Amino acid sequence: MIYLDNAATTYPKPPQVVTAVTSALYKYGANPGRGGHPMSMATAEEVYRARSAAASFFHAPGPECAVFTLNCTHALNAVLKGILKPGDHVVTSCLEHNAVLRPLKKLEEQGVSWTAAQVVPGDSDATVDAFRRALRPETKLAVCTHVSNVWGIRLPVERIAAMVHQYGVPLCVDAAQSAGVLPLSLEDGPDYLCIAPHKGLYAPMGTGLLLTARGEALDTILEGGTGTNSISLEQPGEMPERLESGTLNVPGAAGLRAGLAFVASKGTERICRHEVEMARLAYRGLKRLGARLYTAEPDGAAYAPVFSFNVEGVPSEDTASFLGANGVAVRAGLHCAPAAHRFMGTLESGAVRVCPSAFTSEKEVQGFLAVMTKFMKNSKEKV
Amino acid sequence: MIYLDNAATTYPKPPQVVTAVTSALYKYGANPGRGGHPMSMATAEEVYRARSAAASFFHAPGPECAVFTLNCTHALNAVLKGILKPGDHVVTSCLEHNAVLRPLKKLEEQGVSWTAAQVVPGDSDATVDAFRRALRPETKLAVCTHVSNVWGIRLPVERIAAMVHQYGVPLCVDAAQSAGVLPLSLEDGPDYLCIAPHKGLYAPMGTGLLLTARGEALDTILEGGTGTNSISLEQPGEMPERLESGTLNVPGAAGLRAGLAFVASKGTERICRHEVEMARLAYRGLKRLGARLYTAEPDGAAYAPVFSFNVEGVPSEDTASFLGANGVAVRAGLHCAPAAHRFMGTLESGAVRVCPSAFTSEKEVQGFLAVMTKFMKNSKEKV
Repeated sequence: MIYLDNAATTYPKPPQVVTAVTSALYKYGANPGRGGHPMSMATAEEVYRARSAAASFFHAPGPECAVFTLNCTHALNAVLKGILKPGDHVVTSCLEHNAVLRPLKKLEEQGVSWTAAQVVPGDSDATVDAFRRALRPETKLAVCTHVSNVWGIRLPVERIAAMVHQYGVPLCVDAAQSAGVLPLSLEDGPDYLCIAPHKGLYAPMGTGLLLTARGEALDTILEGGTGTNSISLEQPGEMPERLESGTLNVPGAAGLRAGLAFVASKGTERICRHEVEMARLAYRGLKRLGARLYTAEPDGAAYAPVFSFNVEGVPSEDTASFLGANGVAVRAGLHCAPAAHRFMGTLESGAVRVCPSAFTSEKEVQGFLAVMTKFMKNSKEKV
Repeated sequence: MIYLDNAATTYPKPPQVVTAVTSALYKYGANPGRGGHPMSMATAEEVYRARSAAASFFHAPGPECAVFTLNCTHALNAVLKGILKPGDHVVTSCLEHNAVLRPLKKLEEQGVSWTAAQVVPGDSDATVDAFRRALRPETKLAVCTHVSNVWGIRLPVERIAAMVHQYGVPLCVDAAQSAGVLPLSLEDGPDYLCIAPHKGLYAPMGTGLLLTARGEALDTILEGGTGTNSISLEQPGEMPERLESGTLNVPGAAGLRAGLAFVASKGTERICRHEVEMARLAYRGLKRLGARLYTAEPDGAAYAPVFSFNVEGVPSEDTASFLGANGVAVRAGLHCAPAAHRFMGTLESGAVRVCPSAFTSEKEVQGFLAVMTKFMKNSKEKV
């Protein structure tokens, strides 16, 4: 199988990630830090190592700034609901995933309002300016994706952060598609990073990560046992425990640490260069075949190495089905991001998404293009 | 190591659970049901099999009644916040874990009130009556633990359910300590079961389970992409997707299915009998040694096979430390359940908890008692 659905989750996982998870299942029992025995302490140490590795990878001041969550969606909910109160306003972009838009829609019921700034692909000045114009005196947060999960359009989050900071507004970045691929550092401006480690960090599904620039306490959406200050019925104020109620995904944390080590050993820059090369190869091939492309060529600067396309007159699901039946894994449809499709006029057709990983080879991209050649020949004959 | 900290998480996990997780990491990529390709479908099928197995294990009407969560705490938060609105009242017990009490404390800020009914260990009539007396016209939910995570005290949840149903009030059961050990069925009354599959179901840490008796839509605490009705910014109404935003813990679900199969193959009844026997052996041995015991002997009826003890005049942490240093894993302190300690007068000392699993052998319990004999001899000599 040629797997180009890496924007859903990367596949395969590096063997060391699988080994780390398996080994954690064999080695770690007990709740980390909640028992006095050596195994509980060993479990706590493994979690601490994973937390420190995550904090350090994204240049957070310390491990207390790294919170383990169920997934990136959970991390985004934690930030949005941890900050926004009735009467507050939030600025977002026109390219967001439902992981941002659905919580905002829910917060509307509680009197939170929001504005979607118009992104101008490749024009950072215009994009930053759109965010600026969307600000209001009651704006308490800006939240935007780093990279459109459908189009690969990259948002200038460092510049957006600098701009909103002038108005005392923090920025939360949905880095689901970018962490591990594009440069991403809390030192470059974002106040909150929400991450899907099972994508570009090659961790197992079931892991999520929230990084905060200052480790400050947010309001909580989940409360429960934290192993700290157990006598109090109030959720403890200390981070990261405040946002981590109940038993953690310990094997997931171990896998995340191994994934971070894998990415660090390859180097984000090298991974990005490789993925851009593979995405570009696919893009150019599709262009030659006459597929409908919506964005400029992936370059890693204005466009991350993920893009979507269609075959004129063919529902995206049919294209993906044919590819699937011929050994190529891609996803069609709306990718949980109707706003991004509205932006490009593909709300009805959806689009077929192509996303390479560090493991994607040139031969695989050629294989994908060979199937596409067959498919487009068939489609033309049918017409 | 002699592991008696199974109330935190069971250890070891059965080999078939580890194999299921590892195999899922190798086999499954893509988001279940969100891609049209065979691997996405295979992933969706695995999740469906796990969901069906969970639903069927607890006699839910269908797989839509089983929701995968991060942990049991997440499941409890989902029920409490999914049902309770400002002005509502909720009845709970005096033995609850912070996973119930801290969300209730948080809901207080939003105008939800609650009453803790007094449990009378071994006297179901008196306990049910206490729950009845705590009801008010505005009571919208009863929530209680099935088994105290500290004392093993078992609550008559079937009778409590029958009683509250007379008043049109649903019952949510925190089955963290009982699922897989005691009989537990949605057909016996509870409307919601919140489960920690990494305990008695031998699943990996990082798994949680919410079972509903009717699969009805609850209000949400997390919104995001569900892969369903993506065009709408409203969270979909269909269960279980409504409560499952973002990428699921697929390897965890596979591990949960293997854990359920392990428990089913042994039989809950046989597991319970074995654990009661082991707990009783430990209990009697400690009694002979003169340890302070707070509850009657574990029998599986009034008391589940988990209990806590202390050595007179010794902080629980010191006892656990000595045991830890001598190869026995137990947990001391408050076990995230201050209410349960207040009930027994151990809020200051905490207590040392002993919990066997299906894997605990008589030889291990004897080993634990041998270390305790040494410890108590030392303590007496010091005095």
